[in-house]
This record gives sequence, C-alpha cells and structure tokens, in this order.
Amino acid sequence: MPPVEGQKIAGHRITALGGGVGASRLLLGLYEVSDPAALTIIVNTGDDIELHGLRISPDLDIVTYTLAGIVDPAKGWGIRGETFHALKRLAGYGRANWFNLGDRDLATHIHRTALLAEGKTLADAAELIRSALGVKARILPMSNDPVPTIIESNEGPLHFQEYLVKRRSEPVVKGIRFKGVEAAHPAPGVLEAIRDASRVLICPSNPLISIGPILAVPGVREQLRVRKTHVFAVCPIVGGKSLKGPSDKMLTQLGHDATALGVAKLYADFTGTFVIDPADQALSAAVSTLGMKVAVLPTVMKTRAQKDTLARALLNL
Amino acid sequence: MPPVEGQKIAGHRITALGGGVGASRLLLGLYEVSDPAALTIIVNTGDDIELHGLRISPDLDIVTYTLAGIVDPAKGWGIRGETFHALKRLAGYGRANWFNLGDRDLATHIHRTALLAEGKTLADAAELIRSALGVKARILPMSNDPVPTIIESNEGPLHFQEYLVKRRSEPVVKGIRFKGVEAAHPAPGVLEAIRDASRVLICPSNPLISIGPILAVPGVREQLRVRKTHVFAVCPIVGGKSLKGPSDKMLTQLGHDATALGVAKLYADFTGTFVIDPADQALSAAVSTLGMKVAVLPTVMKTRAQKDTLARALLNL
Repeated sequence: MPPVEGQKIAGHRITALGGGVGASRLLLGLYEVSDPAALTIIVNTGDDIELHGLRISPDLDIVTYTLAGIVDPAKGWGIRGETFHALKRLAGYGRANWFNLGDRDLATHIHRTALLAEGKTLADAAELIRSALGVKARILPMSNDPVPTIIESNEGPLHFQEYLVKRRSEPVVKGIRFKGVEAAHPAPGVLEAIRDASRVLICPSNPLISIGPILAVPGVREQLRVRKTHVFAVCPIVGGKSLKGPSDKMLTQLGHDATALGVAKLYADFTGTFVIDPADQALSAAVSTLGMKVAVLPTVMKTRAQKDTLARALLNL
Repeated sequence: MPPVEGQKIAGHRITALGGGVGASRLLLGLYEVSDPAALTIIVNTGDDIELHGLRISPDLDIVTYTLAGIVDPAKGWGIRGETFHALKRLAGYGRANWFNLGDRDLATHIHRTALLAEGKTLADAAELIRSALGVKARILPMSNDPVPTIIESNEGPLHFQEYLVKRRSEPVVKGIRFKGVEAAHPAPGVLEAIRDASRVLICPSNPLISIGPILAVPGVREQLRVRKTHVFAVCPIVGGKSLKGPSDKMLTQLGHDATALGVAKLYADFTGTFVIDPADQALSAAVSTLGMKVAVLPTVMKTRAQKDTLARALLNL
C-alpha cells in the first residue's frame, strides 16, 4: 500500500458497525487515517451461510481482506488474482456453484470451519484470521451465534445469499427476519466497544440487512442509544439510490422511503449525527426534525482519496 | 486417451485389491484391456486421514483419478496441471501443509466430507465421485469404517501419512496396526465381489500397508482363501527392491525378507498363483514350495504399453 498522505488522526477510539463492500470503503479510509489499533469493527454475520459443509462469513471476510490489502479491488470482495479451480470441480461433482468461492478464499472457509469444529468461536476465528493476515484493527462478529437473515419474498423464504447472489435480488421482498436473533448474544467485546468508543460510526451499509442484523442482536441497539450523542451514521442512500447493492429497492418494497430521510428514520433513536451527501442537502431540515444533527459530507467513495477524505472529515466533525 | 491397441479381453469378471500408485498402474492396464464395467476394485482406506476437517482418502483418489485420466502422470497422484493456492493460504493461517492438497483435489475432499456429513457412507461418496469423473469400473473402499493405519516406530506411534509423507519413511518401523479393524465391516459388495469374480488380482502394492489393511478387515482374508485357486497376486518387490515406496524397507524392519519370497510367504494362504518378475525367476522353486503356482511375467510398468501387456498376460494366464 502507498504511504498515507498527511498525519494520522490520533486520540480517537473508534468503533464502527458495518456490513461488507459498502462498509469496507469507509473502513479502509478509517484504517488509513487513524490508529488502526484503536479501531474496532463490529461486522454483520446475518449473511453467513454454510455451503459444502464450510462456514462462510462473507462480510467478515470482505472487511478483513480489504484491510489486509488483498481484496479484489474490482469486485470489492474475494481475493485479488483469485482462481476458481476448486469451485469448477465442485460444480463437476454436481454441487451448487452460484456462490463464488475462490481457491485462496476457500482456505479461509476451511480454516474457519476447522477452528469452529475444534471448539473455537466465530470471534476466535475472526481474530486468528485477521491477525494472520496482518490486520491491526480489531474485527468482531456481531455475535458468535448463527443469526441467518431470511428474506420473506414472493418466492417464499430465502436465505439472504440465495436472494442476493443466486436470485440476484429479483424476488420482491415482503419481510426480513434474523432467525434466532432473540436468543443470540453479542460477541464478547461488542457492547463494551460501543460503550467505550469515543466515536461510534455506522458505516454506509444496507440499513436493512447489513446494519439491521447488528441492531437486532439483543443489547446492541440499547447500548447505541446510551451513546447516542457519540454515534455518527453515514447514509448509504445518495440521491435516492444505493451507493452499493439493493438497499433502495428493498427499502421501497418494505414501505420505507428509499431516501436519506427514509434511512434517517430507521436510525433516529440511536444516532446523534446523521451524515448525508451534498446531493441530499435539501433533506437536512427534515432529518433534523427527527432529533439528530445533520452533517453534509461527500459520501461517494470511488477512489482511495475519497475514502480517506470522508474518514478524516468524520473524525474531525 | 489414445485408443486401445488390440481387442478387449472379454468374459472376465475381475476383482482387484490394491492401494495407490503401485496398484493404479496395473489397474489402468486392466481398465484398458478388459471391459471396465466388469472390473471391481477394492481399495485400501487405511491411509485415509482427516486434515483441516476434511476427509481425505488418498488411495481411493489415486485410483479414481488414474482411471478418469486426470491423474498427474509424473507423480502418480493428484490432478494433472494442479495448482496449490489454497494450501499456501492454509499454511499462511498456520495450518499443517506437509500433506499436499491441490485446489482441484480439495474439491474432492470437500465434496466427500460434505457427503459424509449428510449421512452418506464412504462407499456412497466413492461411487458418486467415480461416476462424476466418468470412471466405468466399480471402486469400493475396503470398509466404510475408519481403520487408520498406525505405524509403531522408534519415534512413537505415527499415522501412516505422518510416517510416509511428513517423516518421509525415515522412522524405523517396529509394528503396524489398523486401528479399530476388529470391529470394522467390509464395505457392501466387497465380499461378494471376491466371491463372484472369475479372477481376483492382488495388485503390486505394499503388502504391509496397502494390501495388509484390506486383508485385515474381518471376512476378507477368509473369503480370499475360499477363492484361492482364482487369486493371482502380483509381487511388488522385484530384485529385492520395491517397485514403488518403502515396501522393501518396511519388510526388512519388521523381520520379513524384502524379496519376492518374503511377500509370497505373506500371501501363500490365499493366493493360487504368485506372479514374479523375470528378475526373480531364481525364486520360483522356493515360492512353489509354499503351495502356489508361480507365473513369471514382466511386472515393471513404466509405460502404458507395459501396463497393458501385464494386464493382458494376467488375464490370459
């Protein structure tokens, strides 16, 4: 990685909540402009799925690979320069191949599955994987308990990955549930990281199926409410469109406004400052009436510079 | 594959017992010169090992890959043109990498492990894998029950793969046991395949740790004795040296003669015809006194033609 331009911003203890690709852009910026050892990331695991007997945690891996500098930059997930020889052979054996599993990536899933079989927790596995890959930030799964996101659709219930990847977000979403979440516990350190952070950042991830599952883990939303003035949420909808993925469509199908204001309503009870893009400045007043401060910052991050700039701006608010 | 020269030899119902690389040369010959649909192969599974949570059956895979025409011809195991990206990453995670697992090969282990987790037997998995790879011969594991070969050595007990691969056959062998074999059952079809064959062939595999485990499965040796006149064993020791692997060294360390005669003594109770190489012709008389016929045939198989020639000769005996 190229050296970071400018000084690191010191003195913060940041806890960020996020999902996969959308979050990882901002997380890379935060990792670059602040002290990574003072950064804790709480990651959605509602997307987790078991395929071919392997435990796959897509969002944990996206965040970890991104901060390790090995992510495929074009896709935003998977490993750079990846090959897919094993997947092709699995397909030859008649196994499902709609979920892309690269050869190097498979090693992560094999390792995680083996660790879990040996009695380690998902958090233990995440910690071992991120440290083996040289990631200095702490990466926590939202919970060690499986909480699969189920999309209730016009085609019946679908695991989120079936909805997103296999069915390309085409089914109409009628409801979302996080199976077993009532009995799930936050992973060790999750509530403490929210409690002890100088800033809590809600990454620009899908509010329904990336941030939503984290909020649904008992105790998380309550802990965020306690820290409301320190919570900064970056809106993932700009000009009525998702920065990434099907957020806009899902919001609309579930009766929410697919706008920054629609997202603001979902976050108002626990967010102190809601960050919107200049494109949505006209919504500032309406967001304010929900009881949040509004900050207007460029939230579209295509380049490394844009990621770092947003990260710096968030820490300087 | 090139077309087979000459007519297929019809009318045989062959059952072959064997291990990995040594056996697969002869098996490829048999597969070529006779009707593959009338060929049943009973394969050693004492070499099986679980690594990284995956169930690995090296001898089953060597035989299957060989007959499928995808084996790495230089090594005699693994898949041709294989890559090792996943293994390298597994090593990066601190996992053992002394056992070579290629990316395509991993798919076989993932598939097998998933099938077993779904309640299939090892024989079911072997059948699904060989048929997916287009192998027309029937490939049976000796048993569905795990019977790991344990080498009692001067370094203590070692799993056979640890002895062979990790420790490169360097420890001194003091004993061999097949853990749990007393309670193991032959896989469905094993005893019947021996009973119903017009010829039973013992492939030129290590008598102690390739053929030995198969013989140790309750009922197998007894069934072979019943068919003694129809049993043809190809000696894996030529001129006092193994055709492949550490057979000679292991025989010596365990107090056997590392000669064709030494092997003949191990097989005399169930073998009707013992096949030795012209290099060992001088041992013919001594082998005969053990109560077996002796056939002298060239048993060194480096080329495809040599494999086919030996296979034809065995069927024409």
